[in-house]
Amino acid sequence: MRPTKGRFISLEGGEGAGKSTQLRALAAALRARGVEVVETREPGGSEGAEAIRALLLTGGADRWNPRAEALLFAAARADHVEKTIRPALDRGAWVLSDRFLDSSRAYQGMGELTDADILALHRIGSEGFLPDRTLFLTLPEEESSARTRSRDGEASDRIGGRDRAFHLAVAAAFARFVREEPDRFLAIDASGAAEVVTGRLLIALQDLLP
Amino acid sequence: MRPTKGRFISLEGGEGAGKSTQLRALAAALRARGVEVVETREPGGSEGAEAIRALLLTGGADRWNPRAEALLFAAARADHVEKTIRPALDRGAWVLSDRFLDSSRAYQGMGELTDADILALHRIGSEGFLPDRTLFLTLPEEESSARTRSRDGEASDRIGGRDRAFHLAVAAAFARFVREEPDRFLAIDASGAAEVVTGRLLIALQDLLP
Repeated sequence: MRPTKGRFISLEGGEGAGKSTQLRALAAALRARGVEVVETREPGGSEGAEAIRALLLTGGADRWNPRAEALLFAAARADHVEKTIRPALDRGAWVLSDRFLDSSRAYQGMGELTDADILALHRIGSEGFLPDRTLFLTLPEEESSARTRSRDGEASDRIGGRDRAFHLAVAAAFARFVREEPDRFLAIDASGAAEVVTGRLLIALQDLLP
Repeated sequence: MRPTKGRFISLEGGEGAGKSTQLRALAAALRARGVEVVETREPGGSEGAEAIRALLLTGGADRWNPRAEALLFAAARADHVEKTIRPALDRGAWVLSDRFLDSSRAYQGMGELTDADILALHRIGSEGFLPDRTLFLTLPEEESSARTRSRDGEASDRIGGRDRAFHLAVAAAFARFVREEPDRFLAIDASGAAEVVTGRLLIALQDLLP
């Protein structure tokens, strides 16, 4: 048990599942209950991690090989945990992060590197620090594609720009995490109106709420 | 055995041991024998690794915690090995690197992280790729301090600026590597005239020379 009631919640999900929107709505709902909330994201979330993010998300698809990429994500996460997440939890705040470790497991731990490799990097970088709960926003594949296509003006970055087979493999990895860690990792139906989805997220956090 | 006669040699040693001077002299001596030589350094040695180097060597002493720092060094090394070192070896060149893995083992693997952690990062990042030989330039401590002090105009960076106890612990780590890997890791007396030291290095590489 942590000494305070600070809680660390990560949101995961493929492109277009509505993580950013839901993170803002969840933060607002928690603040309405009198909770201090820190909204953050990965890669990034601290000065050093944002500098690493800039290296990760710019340049051509082959700028970093999968091994260097996994190490950079783990380095950014180590800084994020130390400089942003732990201090907030220590003062009793809730931390909501748009992506965390499980994105690295799903995106980088399925090819040249294994899930065990990604977990080893996390042990070395962040002492294996885990969220109290991870909410995985799921969407039928056709709805997700439609939402992603509708983001007309946004440039696709190095990660988001990869092909459909890659994104399907990512979804399969997340589904496996739900099966393997049912207490931490909950799948949440992200279809329908945003307020309805936020209600589902709050229900999934009910046992942690003050 | 590698398919070609390319050789990878790393130079290690504390501040002021003359690594840079000796690397240039060794490269010249090898070129005089008709060998293609690539001179490189760590952290850095490839476009991506140099960008990581800039993150590592700037900012205050506490910009990166030891865990994030070790991950950044391993990421830079993964890029350096893939983009610079392996291609050069594949075409039969010799690669001389000012520092490599053993600097990470000596500088980052002795505190919060262990040598096993640094080796795990190297396995994940670079498939455990090792030099054919590592030449460790040793100097009596007083001579090393004198040479370092004489570099008046040079700003001390985040790593070089650490205290004397730290640098003594680094020297002890290198001495241990010499004992544990006597075939790869050779200690070379770096005192005396530069030409004499270069001669010692060439003798230490004699069995690898074409």
